[in-house]
Amino acid sequence: MDMLVEGRHFLAGADPVKLGHKCLAVNLSDLAAMGARPVAFTLALALPRADAAWLEGFARGLLALADEHGCELIGGDTTKGPLTVCITVFGELAPDTALRRGAARPGDDVWISGTLGDARLALALYRQEIAQDAGLLEACADRMHAPTPRVALGMALAGVAHAAIDVSDGLTGDLGHILAASGVGAVLDADALPAGPALLRCPRDLRRRYGLAGGDDYELCFTAAQADRERIAELSRVAGTAVTRIGAITAEPGLRFIDANGAPLPFNLASFDHFTTP
Amino acid sequence: MDMLVEGRHFLAGADPVKLGHKCLAVNLSDLAAMGARPVAFTLALALPRADAAWLEGFARGLLALADEHGCELIGGDTTKGPLTVCITVFGELAPDTALRRGAARPGDDVWISGTLGDARLALALYRQEIAQDAGLLEACADRMHAPTPRVALGMALAGVAHAAIDVSDGLTGDLGHILAASGVGAVLDADALPAGPALLRCPRDLRRRYGLAGGDDYELCFTAAQADRERIAELSRVAGTAVTRIGAITAEPGLRFIDANGAPLPFNLASFDHFTTP
Repeated sequence: MDMLVEGRHFLAGADPVKLGHKCLAVNLSDLAAMGARPVAFTLALALPRADAAWLEGFARGLLALADEHGCELIGGDTTKGPLTVCITVFGELAPDTALRRGAARPGDDVWISGTLGDARLALALYRQEIAQDAGLLEACADRMHAPTPRVALGMALAGVAHAAIDVSDGLTGDLGHILAASGVGAVLDADALPAGPALLRCPRDLRRRYGLAGGDDYELCFTAAQADRERIAELSRVAGTAVTRIGAITAEPGLRFIDANGAPLPFNLASFDHFTTP
Repeated sequence: MDMLVEGRHFLAGADPVKLGHKCLAVNLSDLAAMGARPVAFTLALALPRADAAWLEGFARGLLALADEHGCELIGGDTTKGPLTVCITVFGELAPDTALRRGAARPGDDVWISGTLGDARLALALYRQEIAQDAGLLEACADRMHAPTPRVALGMALAGVAHAAIDVSDGLTGDLGHILAASGVGAVLDADALPAGPALLRCPRDLRRRYGLAGGDDYELCFTAAQADRERIAELSRVAGTAVTRIGAITAEPGLRFIDANGAPLPFNLASFDHFTTP
């Protein structure tokens, strides 16, 4: 179940087609993080006013993604209020195959799907936190507005990978949930993070920063036994989603960052937090 | 699934304990209207700020009602935003026993549980639409702030009653959903409506008006065969919830009102509508 609020999870005036897509995508991403197959969803919608054109676009984006995953809209609610979208999604998987946050083991590889940071880069450009660069926003905006849930990869990993989570609030914070639930630590190679195509054009410091603590990536971060490296690579090919090995689980608690040469990095980047960020 | 928005479904500054109760109550009421047994629920919460005392009260009211019905909180979401509560509730019932809106038949009795209008009376007093009267608000406020879902009655009626709905937006509008789905009409005795204890102290016109088009009552309106009158009365006793016969389903479409003498009433009271009321 995910609740998205205008001005917090999406910009005021966001394209309703992409918003419809995104609202279901972030829920499907939660299913993917457990390895579940999408089955159905319910939708509650608070709208400032009845706007037929907006609703048509929202429904189109929402239902196109739903159809793509065979995930049927089976109920919900509509009311007047500040623009808010709440979806509860239902999935299924075979007994004892669910990917869980508490299943990481010392020695596991840490993997990430797809690329990181382009959604955060787009937000930074909208907020004018960093200088505009020709074509940069166009290259990353859709990663923020219309993320791709890694459903096929998640289903492929069920019963194979150990722990998994989807990266919605930033890699550092979300991996932190795995570490806390599993009672382990991790070391991440900050220079191994797969930056999105737009972020690749930015300086290294920004690549590390937005890769480690961006948010809104909706990639899967998961851990798996070193012995399963070949198997993970094969599942990645079958699912059509690239995966990158970015670190290792340690018995010692805590999360440490190293650079490409293995030298420790003094990163202290807070994860995205709805209650503390401006 | 129901979404409740501050200032629309509850007043700004509402007592968090009662609000927690109400948010689950309206969802349990939806289950009751289908005759289902509550099983579990998920909760999404948007809060303007992290307020431990508010959350403690909200959780207390919510979980007390959940415990009462053996309905477990199994997941959800929290975020920052205008105060909004969204609950998805899960229930179960035996195959082919669900009460449905489209099952009313000509000749059926129309029944209502409990009493009507006190929640609307409380709202009118808060809004100063009508003059205050000593103790009147105290007598009806809890009907607005902490409604009682008719879960036991709904479960008892499953497989016996024909159509059912819970009265959230006003009897006229909600019964209208039954009539539309069933392709039938109805005649209601406006003077047979069981007014709440506070509304009983008000003039007849207000009793009829708030009874027919009040809203927030969360009583069950249902239809059943005339031959089942004794059985309905017995189920009402077992469930511990009073029921009153207030009219009849007609083959002719449309909803008509009569007074205690059977004379037609020219009522034309709109039902509560989130998009048209001020």
